[in-house]
Amino acid sequence: MGSNSFHMVVARLVHGEIRTLEKMGEKVQLGAGLDSYNRLTEEAQQRALACLGRFAQRISNMPAEAVQIVGTNALRVARNADQFRARAEEVLGYPVEIIAGREEARLIYLGVSHTLSDDAGRRLVIDIGGGSTEFIIGERFEPLELESLHMGCVSFRNRYFPEDRITRRQMEKAVTHAEQELLSIRNRYRQLGWQSTAGSSGSIKAIANVMAHLKISDGTLTLDGMRELRRRLVDMGRTDRLSEIGVRADRHNIFPAGFAILMGAFESLGIESMTYADGALREGLLYDIAGRIQHEDVRERTIQALQERYHVDQQHGRAVEDTALAAWEQVADAWALRTPHDEDVLRWACRLHEIGLTISHSQYHKHGAYLLRYSDLPGFSQQFQRDLATLVRGHRRKFAPAIFESADPEDIPRLRYLCVLLRLAVLIQHPRNQEAPPDIRLYPGEQRLTVEFPKGWLDERPLTLADLQNEQDYLARQKFRLEVSD
Amino acid sequence: MGSNSFHMVVARLVHGEIRTLEKMGEKVQLGAGLDSYNRLTEEAQQRALACLGRFAQRISNMPAEAVQIVGTNALRVARNADQFRARAEEVLGYPVEIIAGREEARLIYLGVSHTLSDDAGRRLVIDIGGGSTEFIIGERFEPLELESLHMGCVSFRNRYFPEDRITRRQMEKAVTHAEQELLSIRNRYRQLGWQSTAGSSGSIKAIANVMAHLKISDGTLTLDGMRELRRRLVDMGRTDRLSEIGVRADRHNIFPAGFAILMGAFESLGIESMTYADGALREGLLYDIAGRIQHEDVRERTIQALQERYHVDQQHGRAVEDTALAAWEQVADAWALRTPHDEDVLRWACRLHEIGLTISHSQYHKHGAYLLRYSDLPGFSQQFQRDLATLVRGHRRKFAPAIFESADPEDIPRLRYLCVLLRLAVLIQHPRNQEAPPDIRLYPGEQRLTVEFPKGWLDERPLTLADLQNEQDYLARQKFRLEVSD
Repeated sequence: MGSNSFHMVVARLVHGEIRTLEKMGEKVQLGAGLDSYNRLTEEAQQRALACLGRFAQRISNMPAEAVQIVGTNALRVARNADQFRARAEEVLGYPVEIIAGREEARLIYLGVSHTLSDDAGRRLVIDIGGGSTEFIIGERFEPLELESLHMGCVSFRNRYFPEDRITRRQMEKAVTHAEQELLSIRNRYRQLGWQSTAGSSGSIKAIANVMAHLKISDGTLTLDGMRELRRRLVDMGRTDRLSEIGVRADRHNIFPAGFAILMGAFESLGIESMTYADGALREGLLYDIAGRIQHEDVRERTIQALQERYHVDQQHGRAVEDTALAAWEQVADAWALRTPHDEDVLRWACRLHEIGLTISHSQYHKHGAYLLRYSDLPGFSQQFQRDLATLVRGHRRKFAPAIFESADPEDIPRLRYLCVLLRLAVLIQHPRNQEAPPDIRLYPGEQRLTVEFPKGWLDERPLTLADLQNEQDYLARQKFRLEVSD
Repeated sequence: MGSNSFHMVVARLVHGEIRTLEKMGEKVQLGAGLDSYNRLTEEAQQRALACLGRFAQRISNMPAEAVQIVGTNALRVARNADQFRARAEEVLGYPVEIIAGREEARLIYLGVSHTLSDDAGRRLVIDIGGGSTEFIIGERFEPLELESLHMGCVSFRNRYFPEDRITRRQMEKAVTHAEQELLSIRNRYRQLGWQSTAGSSGSIKAIANVMAHLKISDGTLTLDGMRELRRRLVDMGRTDRLSEIGVRADRHNIFPAGFAILMGAFESLGIESMTYADGALREGLLYDIAGRIQHEDVRERTIQALQERYHVDQQHGRAVEDTALAAWEQVADAWALRTPHDEDVLRWACRLHEIGLTISHSQYHKHGAYLLRYSDLPGFSQQFQRDLATLVRGHRRKFAPAIFESADPEDIPRLRYLCVLLRLAVLIQHPRNQEAPPDIRLYPGEQRLTVEFPKGWLDERPLTLADLQNEQDYLARQKFRLEVSD
């Protein structure tokens, strides 16, 4: 669900290869439906939901882990994104995720790099969206630099080409604006350098088509060609004449905006030539799903990198994880926590629950939650990060309602149960001596849990018993009953 | 200003050596003056201000950089700490700082390590305060582990020994509570290990005195001695009988609480014996001031460590710093920014303004502010960290009032001016090519600034000119007028 258009691709994984079965796309212009308070208008939402209704038919009956639905910039900035998301999930019947700009860039690169020849050497990939533009330098399938800048063809259209005129002055302003945005990454990108450049959006495809139509080039975008086209656009002066140079009518109003952004990129980054590449975000998602199915989950790498960057005690994290998952196994059915999402979020919260210690010991559960909520984490959606942050926030001290305030209301009951499991595991491993989890028996009920320890185990551990008594108080204050026996 | 007592020490620095001239101390019991909403009662504030009034006389007329006044746990937790701080500053005539627990631990170690013989080998230092207890492992003058745990003799007295009785059950509970608090650091500390142990607070001094008084030992605290004393205290049963074993009357009511915390530490950490060491927080502050005067400012090391930990582009930070300080030089008098604090906060904000990029590019000024506000930064007070965070928060994008919301209201005008300087420096260095600062002339006024660039400089830099035009708009919205000429 992009800011300009919505896309869908259906594919089959055959012996590790992706075979595309179907592609669909509609120009929904969700980003143009943001009002001056950054709220999606009801009209725009209806337009989007109608499109999703058409898509939904094609994917009903697929298993949940085979479907991934993501939203980008328009939904990142919309204040009522949560409300729209709930409506979209109702229409689609699957979870909808909103991804951060760098995650979008990572997926775009994943998609584009699979369609390019497998050369050695670095490549620069640019994708101009409706609300953001992604710049990636990568080598083969590995991104080396990822950025998502806050400019897109819909937002630039609204600002510089709101009517159907193309003036020299407005074009100048739009190109300068793009160059300004690029200042923050220009030197870093040029220093790293690249051997080839590819562009991957509808905007860039349209420009390539014009280059071929005007016989400026064979469809390759060159710096001279871009400058030539800039003169022609200004001379032409009106968007409704763009058909003359081969632009489809439904792109007329955004064409000059997309062109200005790309012109700015050519000038700022010193690009000499660029080819159009098929494949982008939606193909990236396919390769991401395929990776998970084939146990090359990029998220595992992200968690590992976080543990290293913030010097987490990994042995302790593993002990807490073993304890929590053994407990989860016993209560997952009764508490309806049997989904892969529940298992993943609990597992990774265990590994990362002490991440905030790098900032400060005091209130470290809150610092950890901050890091998990706002860091760029490859492979994770913003909601997943919020869930992780919620669990880490709630892993110690008071079990207060404030812990869950950034979560979706409908997810709170589930997160409360997961949080109880995490807290129990942290408590049992509090002595930090990496003991194997004790052989406990759990008896779950609604807002209650009985924990039965092996005979004599607690007698030898008076501090754990005292911790359990504190925990009973903490939970009881939020109407959760914890009972302990042996 | 401790939670139990207030201390003052006056010294003279002679050829790099500190000669103590005077020590004063009063048992203010500020921590006992926190009501159930964690607000300091008016009565407690009056008690504290009266003490400060007596101290103030002794330090009037000293130069500002020779005076350091800090508050610890009671002021860390008090919700009306800012109000009390303003009153204290009025009485004292110098700034009052509130320091974080780990900073307190660092200063204690600095004080204690200067009074101990300069052995090789690691030492464990424990200091039991009114509201927190610090645990430090260090070697010579370098701390290796620093922790401040949230338990102290005033808070434990309120919880476990609120009347004048000492029961077996309450002693048991208090010791267990201390052991629970220590669980989080026990293994880490024991793994690192130490060769000698020193204790440094009034509580520990009192226990050492009792050991000597009862002839249990020569004043060394041993594990056997501690166990023996525990039995005696419970047998005695009442605090008003503590005089019999040599406890001064003004310590009667907190003695069992301080003892329980130390007992818990002996048991949890496996301490066999401990000596009492003179020197603590107040001596640490003296050595800290002396270090700054002699250009061994621990804060420079902290900034350097932060730049490394968060992979800051140091060359760029230095270019921004050079540009900002050159500008500051020209306006410091007109805007009343000529203090070392102003220069320091501007300098370090320049070096650290991009620290949040490690978390995410999006909103990185906010992430940087979060890190600077909440990290344990050796050498910095909480207010200094808030000022740094405020500048970093305000270095780009909107110049909104929200930037200054965590600052002291009286500091806002000063911080606004500093923020304008930082923004100007970042803007000039936006192209990131490490140019020397241009030879600009600044003409400061009230809520206005005219910047004169060298002839032709801006003509060659249209992007910087566009940035300046944006900046004029940002500042104008907050009634600050920026004029540009060349």
